[in-house]
Amino acid sequence: MFEEILKHIEEVIQLDPTEIERFTSVLVRKKLRKRQFLIQEGDTVSYEYFVAKGCLKAYEIDDNGDEHIIQFAKENWWISDFKAFFEEGKATLNIDCIEESIVYGIEKQDLENLFLDIPKFDRFFRIKLTSAFVALQNRILSSLDKSTSERYLDFLTAYPNLEQRIPNYMIANYLGVKPESLSRIRKTIVKG
Amino acid sequence: MFEEILKHIEEVIQLDPTEIERFTSVLVRKKLRKRQFLIQEGDTVSYEYFVAKGCLKAYEIDDNGDEHIIQFAKENWWISDFKAFFEEGKATLNIDCIEESIVYGIEKQDLENLFLDIPKFDRFFRIKLTSAFVALQNRILSSLDKSTSERYLDFLTAYPNLEQRIPNYMIANYLGVKPESLSRIRKTIVKG
Repeated sequence: MFEEILKHIEEVIQLDPTEIERFTSVLVRKKLRKRQFLIQEGDTVSYEYFVAKGCLKAYEIDDNGDEHIIQFAKENWWISDFKAFFEEGKATLNIDCIEESIVYGIEKQDLENLFLDIPKFDRFFRIKLTSAFVALQNRILSSLDKSTSERYLDFLTAYPNLEQRIPNYMIANYLGVKPESLSRIRKTIVKG
Repeated sequence: MFEEILKHIEEVIQLDPTEIERFTSVLVRKKLRKRQFLIQEGDTVSYEYFVAKGCLKAYEIDDNGDEHIIQFAKENWWISDFKAFFEEGKATLNIDCIEESIVYGIEKQDLENLFLDIPKFDRFFRIKLTSAFVALQNRILSSLDKSTSERYLDFLTAYPNLEQRIPNYMIANYLGVKPESLSRIRKTIVKG
């Protein structure tokens, strides 16, 4: 049942059977339909989530009602409204499912206790956060001075094998460009 | 000599005298003049740096020779070309001093050994990286759907007491707006 998440953890740290038991005992499994909300703006955010199956998106809705996608998450990614989760505030993001999905949630206090009981998890999340931090910095750099087609190529690198699973208009939204411009770019790239 | 960095660390984890000795033995102190480079594009990046005194900026130079500032760092911040540092590639960023500065550098292999010898440092950097990750995500959200004056207010929150130490045109560059627009906004905000 916890196969995917344990594999993901054990790529970085080794756990003995007692530690596996301790870790999996705090996980909450959620099965979500396509378009179902995992987190909605205004919610109290008590959990962060590991994606075992499926694909989700995190986005903000502005005063005009327009969506701005900040993150996609597929298998082996972690997702939450991290600001609200870590600072114990209300969600400003919405997270919903692009596909039917299965996630494992871990509650804030359970996670804090886990760090104290099994400090190897500090190491695990330190390493994961390092990659996440570098990826976000790349995204900012990418938006500052690159052309749309370079940014689309950066998207393909950041989210390998995801472009077939996400509608064109969502990728365009993530990149902050018009869907028509992105379609043109995708055709040019396919042609080479 | 290591007063500032030890105070910074001990706000998060407690170190005994042996651990302090072990940690400080790998630190390299650097005194830098105003405008001096800490890292230049193309350099091998072996160190990440803690700012004990002064103020620095990290920026990318695009194909037209224009600078794009990605990060400022003042006292108690960490700075490097993190992508190059963690992935052991060449620097794509430049980092130089806005003021005369003092930094403490730690070398990649020394840092990895420190994590193995004193796992509390995993915890320290896990907590610091969490804040850094949330701050970067805020910066992306801020750029997606906020007005320039809201983004300037976000800058003031992210970098408290820094707006007097950095020239207007650098803050405008960081926000991606014209210096004249920022001057207008700053006047309006001061007037209230």
